[in-house]
Amino acid sequence: MSEKLVQSTGNGLHNSIPKLNVAVIGAGLVGSLAALNFARKGYEVDLYEYREDIRTAELVQGRSINLALSQRGRKALSEVGLEEQVLSTAIPMRGRMLHDIKGNTSIVLYDPCTNQCLYSVGRKHLNEILLNAGEKFPNIHHHFEHKLSSVNFNEGSMRFKRPYEEKYTEAKADLIVGCDGAFSAVRQQMIKNYGFNFSQEYIEHGYLELCIPSKNNEFQMPANYLHIWPRDTFMMIALPNQDKSFTVTLSMPFKVFADIKTPKDLLEFFVKYYVDALPLIGEEKLIKDFFKSKPQHLVSIKCNPYHYESKAVLMGDAAHAMVPYYGQGMNAGMEDCSLLSSIISQKEITLDEALLQYTETRWRDAHAICDLAMYNYVEMRDLTKRFTFKCRKFLDTTLFRFFPTTWVPLYNSVSFTSMPYNKCISNRKWQDKILRNFFYTILSGAFVTSTALYIMNVQKPN
Amino acid sequence: MSEKLVQSTGNGLHNSIPKLNVAVIGAGLVGSLAALNFARKGYEVDLYEYREDIRTAELVQGRSINLALSQRGRKALSEVGLEEQVLSTAIPMRGRMLHDIKGNTSIVLYDPCTNQCLYSVGRKHLNEILLNAGEKFPNIHHHFEHKLSSVNFNEGSMRFKRPYEEKYTEAKADLIVGCDGAFSAVRQQMIKNYGFNFSQEYIEHGYLELCIPSKNNEFQMPANYLHIWPRDTFMMIALPNQDKSFTVTLSMPFKVFADIKTPKDLLEFFVKYYVDALPLIGEEKLIKDFFKSKPQHLVSIKCNPYHYESKAVLMGDAAHAMVPYYGQGMNAGMEDCSLLSSIISQKEITLDEALLQYTETRWRDAHAICDLAMYNYVEMRDLTKRFTFKCRKFLDTTLFRFFPTTWVPLYNSVSFTSMPYNKCISNRKWQDKILRNFFYTILSGAFVTSTALYIMNVQKPN
Repeated sequence: MSEKLVQSTGNGLHNSIPKLNVAVIGAGLVGSLAALNFARKGYEVDLYEYREDIRTAELVQGRSINLALSQRGRKALSEVGLEEQVLSTAIPMRGRMLHDIKGNTSIVLYDPCTNQCLYSVGRKHLNEILLNAGEKFPNIHHHFEHKLSSVNFNEGSMRFKRPYEEKYTEAKADLIVGCDGAFSAVRQQMIKNYGFNFSQEYIEHGYLELCIPSKNNEFQMPANYLHIWPRDTFMMIALPNQDKSFTVTLSMPFKVFADIKTPKDLLEFFVKYYVDALPLIGEEKLIKDFFKSKPQHLVSIKCNPYHYESKAVLMGDAAHAMVPYYGQGMNAGMEDCSLLSSIISQKEITLDEALLQYTETRWRDAHAICDLAMYNYVEMRDLTKRFTFKCRKFLDTTLFRFFPTTWVPLYNSVSFTSMPYNKCISNRKWQDKILRNFFYTILSGAFVTSTALYIMNVQKPN
Repeated sequence: MSEKLVQSTGNGLHNSIPKLNVAVIGAGLVGSLAALNFARKGYEVDLYEYREDIRTAELVQGRSINLALSQRGRKALSEVGLEEQVLSTAIPMRGRMLHDIKGNTSIVLYDPCTNQCLYSVGRKHLNEILLNAGEKFPNIHHHFEHKLSSVNFNEGSMRFKRPYEEKYTEAKADLIVGCDGAFSAVRQQMIKNYGFNFSQEYIEHGYLELCIPSKNNEFQMPANYLHIWPRDTFMMIALPNQDKSFTVTLSMPFKVFADIKTPKDLLEFFVKYYVDALPLIGEEKLIKDFFKSKPQHLVSIKCNPYHYESKAVLMGDAAHAMVPYYGQGMNAGMEDCSLLSSIISQKEITLDEALLQYTETRWRDAHAICDLAMYNYVEMRDLTKRFTFKCRKFLDTTLFRFFPTTWVPLYNSVSFTSMPYNKCISNRKWQDKILRNFFYTILSGAFVTSTALYIMNVQKPN
C-alpha cells in the first residue's frame, strides 16, 4: 500500500486512490459513527451488525438504557453534523446529587464556573439518529443480522453467519474496521498475531439495572443530576430518561448479590441502604426487576496495537472496553472516530502510516481512561462521601474559577475538554505536586514563625 | 459432580467414581507428564498432540534445544519414577560463567554452600522419556496429528482436524486438560467465559538460536556452567548439550536484529560484543545459522482462573507462559502436575472442589514466577555485571552458609526448593528489609559515635 490515501481528484470530493472498500463490523454507536466518517470521505462502506436493526427491533427489556454524553462525544457528533439533533432530546445533568444512607441529599456541581454539564441520552435513540444519518449516504450499505464468523486480514475476506441460513455469507474489503464491542470478533483474530498485547480484567462487582418510573408524568427526583448513592463497597446511580423515568444501576460485589435470595432479603437490603429510593422504585416493581435478571459482569480491556498493517483497525470497546464509572466509554469510542478521521484526512499519508499513527497516538490515552474509570469506581462509591474529597473539590473549583485555562480539575479535563486522557492524568499529577509544595511551604512557614516567636519570647527580659 | 473423586474400591488401585475419562491436549513435556499422573490414578487418558510423534519425527532444524531442569521439575519427575533416568543423561550446571566484552570470564556459583545445580536437558530427549513411560500404561491412548479445532466444555466434546482429512474427528471426555502451550486452543475457549482474567504481553526483545559445535568430540567451553554474555540492553546465553555442543540463545531488541542486514554487519557485531564466542561458533556457521531464521517473539501470559467448573483445566504454558530468563517455564509447568495430582488425591474431594483449589493455590505463584522471569531478564543482561549485584550475591551466600534454612537467597529458593513462588518473593522482601535496617543501624551507630567523639573532643580542656 504505497499509494497515497486521500487526494483531491478535482470532482469536488476527497477521493481515495485506490478507492477504499471499508467493512465496518458492528453498527452500534461507534460503528455507525465510523461508517458516517468513512462515507463522508467518499469510501464505499459496508456496515455489518449481528443483531437485527435496532430501529425496528422490539425493546425486549422495556427499559431505555442511557449514557452520559460529554465533550468528546459531542465533538465527534458535531463533526458529522449531528450534535444539535442529539442534544435537542438529551437531558442535561449539571452535577452529582449524593444520597446519604438516611436519604438526605447534597449537590456537587460538575462545573460551577462555566456551567458545563453531561447529557443523559438514550442508547437506542442515539443509535437510531446515527443509522438514519447513514441512510442518506448512497455509499453506506447496511447489513443487519450478519454475525462475523471468521476473518482473514491478509486476504481482506470475511465470513458471516446469518440466522436461518446454513451457508455462510462471504464478503471482501480493503480495510476491516472492528467496532464490535468488548467481545470483538475482529480482535479475536488480531490476538493471534505476534506482538499483540492484550489484557482483559473482570472486576468483582456486577451490575443490575432497575427503574424509577415517572409519576403523574413527572420525574420523581430532580432531573438535572446524576444521582449517586455511595455506600463504600457498593453503590447505586440513576440517570434521567426522556420519558421522565430514571434508569437505576445497582453495582456491588457478586457475593452481595448472591446473598439477596428472597424478596424479604431485598426489601431489608433497600431499607438499610437505599431507604429513599425504595418508595420511588416501588416495592413490587423492585422485586420484579431485581429477580428477573442476573447481575452482569464488568470488564476492562486494553490492547496494543489497534491495527494490523493496512488491513484492519479496532475502535471503541473493541479496542478499549472500560468499566462504566467515568461515563467515558461511548465518548472515548466516538473520539476514536474523530481521531482516525483526522489522521486519514492528512495529505500524503498512506493507509499503513495512518493506522500506525492512530495506534501510536491513541493507545496510551485509551489505557489511561481505562485506568481512570477503574479509579473512579472507588471515588464514586467511597470518596465522594469523604471530607478530604469535598475539600479537594472545593479547592479545585476555587482555583479553576480564578485560573480557568490553567487549573482544570481532572474530572473537568476528562469530561469537558478534548485534552488527551494521558495529559489529563499528568496535569492532575502536576496539580497534586503544586498543592503538596504549597502546603509544605505553609507548614514550614508556620513552624519557622512559631519557633522565632518562641525564641523571642524566651529571650524577652522578665 | 457431587460424587467423590477418589475412593479405594478394594481392587488395589485408587479408582475414580465415576471413572474419569480425561482428554489431555498437548503431548509436550507438561502434557505427557500430566497424562502419566492421571493414568497412575486409574483414569482413562486420551493424549492429543497436533504435531507428529516427536520420537519418530525428523529434527528439522538440526539443533537440540535444551532446558534447565531444577528442583520443581525434578520433584515432579521423581513422583512418576523418572527423575533418575532423566538426570543420568543431563549435564549439571553449577553456576553462571560470565563472559565480559573482552572475552574474560568469571564464575558465580548458584549454591557454593550445598553445591546444588541446574541440569541441562534436551527437550526432545525428555519428551521421549515421558512418552515412552506413557506407553507402559494401557489406559493412556496417544493421538498424534490431532489439532484441536473447537471444544465445548459443558458437553465435554472436542473436534480435531487431522492432516489430509476433510472431516473432523470428534471425541468426548469428562475432563479436558489444556497443556497446549502459550497459544493454547483450550484457553482460547476459556477466554470467552465471563470472569476469566487474561493478559498477554510481548517483550521488545526477540531471540534466535545459534550453536557452538563440539571440537574433536569435546566441549569448546567448560561444560558445567550456564554461560552468559551480559551486554546491558541485550545478551547471549549458552547451555551444554549431551553431544558436547552448546545451544546459544541470542536475545536482543528486534530493531537490533533488523540492523544486522549483511554477513559483514553480523561479523562486526560479534567482534564488538561477543569476540570470544565468534571463533567457537565459526564465522561461516554463524552467518548460515543467523540468516536462515527470523528472531522469535517472547510472550508473558497470565490468567485466572485456570479451570472451568469441573470440565476443564489449564496447565503449563497454557496457564502461565513466561519469558525464559529464570529457567522456570518447564519447572513451573511440571510443578502444576505435582500440585493438581496431590489435590485430586485428597480424600473426599469432588472434581469441582479440586479444580477450584488448584486455581486458588496456584494463580498467585504462577503470576509471581512470570514477574520474576521478566525481572531476571534485566538481571541477566545488566545487573550481573554490576558491583552492587556482586556484593549482594556475596552477602546472600555468606548468610546462606551460616543460616542455611533461614536465609535462602531468592534464586536458590526459586530453583532449589519447592517454596511457593510467591513466598520466595515475600521472603526476599523480608531479607531486603533486614539488610536495610541493619545498614541503617550501622550508619546511625557510626553517626552517634562520631558525634559523641566530636563533642568529647570539643569539650576536652586545652
